[in-house]
Amino acid sequence: MVLAVSGGPDSTALLHGAAALSKDRSWRLTVAHLDHALRASSAHEAAAVAAAAAAMGLPAEVRRADVAALAAAEHRSLEDAGRQARYRFLEEVATGLGPGALIATAHTADDAAETILLRLARGSGLRGLRGIPARRGRIVRPLLHARRSALRAALDAAGIAYVTDPSNADPAHARNRVRGELLPELERLNPAVVEALARFGRLAADDDDLLDALAAAELARRRDGEDGSIDWHRPPARALGRRVMRLAIGDPAPSAERIEALLDGAEGPRGGIAIELGGGRGASVRERRIRLG
Amino acid sequence: MVLAVSGGPDSTALLHGAAALSKDRSWRLTVAHLDHALRASSAHEAAAVAAAAAAMGLPAEVRRADVAALAAAEHRSLEDAGRQARYRFLEEVATGLGPGALIATAHTADDAAETILLRLARGSGLRGLRGIPARRGRIVRPLLHARRSALRAALDAAGIAYVTDPSNADPAHARNRVRGELLPELERLNPAVVEALARFGRLAADDDDLLDALAAAELARRRDGEDGSIDWHRPPARALGRRVMRLAIGDPAPSAERIEALLDGAEGPRGGIAIELGGGRGASVRERRIRLG
Repeated sequence: MVLAVSGGPDSTALLHGAAALSKDRSWRLTVAHLDHALRASSAHEAAAVAAAAAAMGLPAEVRRADVAALAAAEHRSLEDAGRQARYRFLEEVATGLGPGALIATAHTADDAAETILLRLARGSGLRGLRGIPARRGRIVRPLLHARRSALRAALDAAGIAYVTDPSNADPAHARNRVRGELLPELERLNPAVVEALARFGRLAADDDDLLDALAAAELARRRDGEDGSIDWHRPPARALGRRVMRLAIGDPAPSAERIEALLDGAEGPRGGIAIELGGGRGASVRERRIRLG
Repeated sequence: MVLAVSGGPDSTALLHGAAALSKDRSWRLTVAHLDHALRASSAHEAAAVAAAAAAMGLPAEVRRADVAALAAAEHRSLEDAGRQARYRFLEEVATGLGPGALIATAHTADDAAETILLRLARGSGLRGLRGIPARRGRIVRPLLHARRSALRAALDAAGIAYVTDPSNADPAHARNRVRGELLPELERLNPAVVEALARFGRLAADDDDLLDALAAAELARRRDGEDGSIDWHRPPARALGRRVMRLAIGDPAPSAERIEALLDGAEGPRGGIAIELGGGRGASVRERRIRLG
């Protein structure tokens, strides 16, 4: 199992929790740390993670990535570029350990709640409100039901040191505003709001999976011709129709407005329409059949 | 059409907007105001609404209800008791006008967004996040896409007076905290967050309706015996199973935990279980059939 350890409190709790549990189990743990090179202190933090692993008798893989340069080259935010570089690194370390290796990250219930609020604020539908999955491929998140405050309290009680990332307090980052302002305000309405949001995320994921399965079956039934066109006589409920078309069109997803316009056209009184879907893709409707190309 | 007019800015905009539109239409408008008797100034406000209606040549029905006494008698919050008394009064006025009468309320996009945030904070699933419906029975909400700030600006520009309810600034009311603290903070993340939340509510309603229709069909298929028991061999996806059982059990809804426990029992290795569902109701499972009673 690869442990993703930044050196902050959550991943330090993951490291010590996994090490304690592994004593009675046949786990083989490897610590992985990606130095994002965004702060002067980051090399020092990387060395501290390596030293902590060595003190616990665990192997460590530490790599340095110039996340600022990656972000600039790919026109991504620092957060996006950092996340992508981090997961790519973790997957490489896991692949090096052989098949069956898992990657454990230290995401908490607080992270899941923050993700749901961020996506809701930015205008998501149900799909975006799934929160953070407890498992995806070989990535596992054993702390997803734990509160960040409980992990910190446990570390402090045990006298275990951890790094406090100063960028976590910078209100220029949207997630920090959610963490520092929005969640505390919501907790005044409901002290258990983090648990409520995490539960909502799990229910949303179940509902979303069910609707996706329905959409896949509906698409297979309606794509009945030899030319790959989709029969839109007797259209399904709009909630299902949206998902059928989203699935048929594939990635990158067109805007919600384009999909609504396509369905309005396919279900409207006029015989034919043509709509751009972005990325050189288009759709046309004739005689209540939808053709994508 | 009955116009629900509190005298605040939103309903004053509804009153003047409906009056302006009715000139070219065959609408017959009646102003309805329920004095909640919660503030010393409320009788004065009721008189002001009646005077405004008279000045516009519209009939008005004004009634006084002791909402505090209703709330105490029924062990409800002032907000709940007021809402129930208000809608009962509006329905009575509409019934008095004859069949075909509609009731228009002044709910705005801000109200819809606040409702979604309140329910999310309190731990709702998809069902609770439907926002405020644009139409329910004979109740219509023509301002549901309008921003509260735009209505106020229009009234101020036209020099039309309205009442400012001092209780709307009281942070003891959860809705006022959402309005005064939470939504402004979310708007710093996304200036169009109110529209994003309102759109989420509409999508959630569509998804929720579709899932409910599926659940009703699934329940009809599984309730196949003469004894009204429900066949739970080959259980459906949990997202659907939850809704099937919620529908079969009816109101008042048991807690989510009870429904999960019932489904865990019905799908688990043990042959039989019995579970209390509250309100004197119970469920038992034998040979993969669920019996409610």
